[in-house]
Amino acid sequence: MLLHAHEVDFMIVSRMSDIRWATGFTGSNGLLIVTVDWQALFTDGRYRIQAQQEVGPLPLHVPEGDILEYIHDNEMLKSGSTGILQADLVTIAEKKRWSRLFPDIAWVDATNLLTQLVAEKSSEELSNIERAQRITEDVFSSLLSQLKPGLSEKEVAAEIVCQHLKRGAERMSFDPIVATGPHSALPHARPTDRIIQEQDIILLDMGCFVNGYASDMTRTVFMGEPTPKMKKVYKTVRRAQEEAIGTAKAGITTRALDLSARTVIDEAGFGAFFTHSLGHGVGLEIHEWPRLSQHVEEDIPPGVVVSIEPGIYLPDEFGVRIEDLVVLTEDGCRNLTQAPKEILVL
Amino acid sequence: MLLHAHEVDFMIVSRMSDIRWATGFTGSNGLLIVTVDWQALFTDGRYRIQAQQEVGPLPLHVPEGDILEYIHDNEMLKSGSTGILQADLVTIAEKKRWSRLFPDIAWVDATNLLTQLVAEKSSEELSNIERAQRITEDVFSSLLSQLKPGLSEKEVAAEIVCQHLKRGAERMSFDPIVATGPHSALPHARPTDRIIQEQDIILLDMGCFVNGYASDMTRTVFMGEPTPKMKKVYKTVRRAQEEAIGTAKAGITTRALDLSARTVIDEAGFGAFFTHSLGHGVGLEIHEWPRLSQHVEEDIPPGVVVSIEPGIYLPDEFGVRIEDLVVLTEDGCRNLTQAPKEILVL
Repeated sequence: MLLHAHEVDFMIVSRMSDIRWATGFTGSNGLLIVTVDWQALFTDGRYRIQAQQEVGPLPLHVPEGDILEYIHDNEMLKSGSTGILQADLVTIAEKKRWSRLFPDIAWVDATNLLTQLVAEKSSEELSNIERAQRITEDVFSSLLSQLKPGLSEKEVAAEIVCQHLKRGAERMSFDPIVATGPHSALPHARPTDRIIQEQDIILLDMGCFVNGYASDMTRTVFMGEPTPKMKKVYKTVRRAQEEAIGTAKAGITTRALDLSARTVIDEAGFGAFFTHSLGHGVGLEIHEWPRLSQHVEEDIPPGVVVSIEPGIYLPDEFGVRIEDLVVLTEDGCRNLTQAPKEILVL
Repeated sequence: MLLHAHEVDFMIVSRMSDIRWATGFTGSNGLLIVTVDWQALFTDGRYRIQAQQEVGPLPLHVPEGDILEYIHDNEMLKSGSTGILQADLVTIAEKKRWSRLFPDIAWVDATNLLTQLVAEKSSEELSNIERAQRITEDVFSSLLSQLKPGLSEKEVAAEIVCQHLKRGAERMSFDPIVATGPHSALPHARPTDRIIQEQDIILLDMGCFVNGYASDMTRTVFMGEPTPKMKKVYKTVRRAQEEAIGTAKAGITTRALDLSARTVIDEAGFGAFFTHSLGHGVGLEIHEWPRLSQHVEEDIPPGVVVSIEPGIYLPDEFGVRIEDLVVLTEDGCRNLTQAPKEILVL
């Protein structure tokens, strides 16, 4: 059907998460070719047995040498045919190889080839995301009793990773962010040797993979009573986040969803300090389509899981971000996140 | 000098590890432009403060919106000039954006633009790799007393990650491989729920980052006395690895180095079961140039760090791999790995 829509004879799927989505293959190297007549997975010798177990009846080729040369030498692609490459993944150099080896094929550069199909989650995919999210929430909950002055950001980050893995996560979906005190004003701070102090704000952003699907959650908590300014900022971020969750619904545009939260922050006078977009799709990759940005205007279909993560970052002072994962439905959205969002004072 | 060699007016450096190597910037998004007249780093608002701290006097631009449009709108690249893109990283779609926004610039596609410069390590870079390697060896050493029947592969893998992070690793350089019993016959096995049993062979492959530089080490150990066949395979892999380490020297080709180990395994009758290449460059990325493959013929200059990791994988039976990191010198190579390679029976 996609081949028909693009008016081509075949497509080369190169993105590993797309290949996993389409075939179940979880290796780190491979190509999926889908033609009107046949389809097949190509990988290398390291993954022969694993691929056999994972892809079922789909034909599997495990060339000894280079995959492209194997496809060429076995004349698997018809001269004069038209084929798609994933232009948002395939490099200039890789395209040159395809063109050189198959000079008689007309190559079509397609962006977002499977993006929307991959974005719309089945109930099985949703339950994998929810399982990952439960682990992240459990870790957060157990951290609350462990966080104390004297621990360094790096120590807390290590603890976050250990606890995820010990609860059965495959791996982290990104390096955890543990940003304390003024570090929380850096939206993408990396854990340092800074020691947690009394009266610190602590921003925690973390997630893991379960069955290949990611969780992603941010909470900001307080070591001791927050200042009035911290409370004001926290409540503004929370209102902005709840406004966006109340607005989220299949069919809304990425821009409208971003603006629903941004307007709340703007009106509270913190607009200049919400320096990133509202969120992003989450699934087999931690950052998927769509990007919830005021600069992007795309409709979001039902079944798409996105992060809703507004933040306010006051340089040299502190920052607050609150992030949930939600799945968009015809009626609104379902929040896949259960961790509390009240002001938590440790 | 590179601009001169390529006969161009400027280069766009897009690979983040190359940007880190050239500028010290450690963020996840950015562009470095080097022209005959000026150079500058471009990143987004998330990294403003971090980049200011990291890049020193190098001019920094932090556009509010899209970086390419900012470069375009500020007329930073001269019409009629010639510029390099990193063809082995830049996607077809990204190149189209450059071409569309800058139609009067002649774009040159360069592969391996900084590869060799990045590959030749300074003594400071080597000491970062060695620090990472020491952590990995410490973890391996402490694991030896913890490995016992009843633990699952996943539990051991989680322990490996925790111990690395608690010893100060920034993060893992890849998900650890813990392959027990017949799983060890899969070169890139992922940890499963399989429980370690008496008489199991256990293959451990792991590494971490310190100051951005990676370690990488594989050891294969035995839970109880190995069978004669296991011993024979182990000794063959060890001889192959030592042959390669004895052969490694600046100026050798990737193919010759691979074959030095492969010949030992071939002559022992296991040639069909050494199903991957001998090793790869290691540095700011866990897989860097060069690839030590019999299918690649490139000279390796002094200062390059490579993994030497032959293996023999007998399907449904067991596998053995032994991996060290070495740095090539004019006289031979220096082994950056200190963990023992004798047969270890736990």
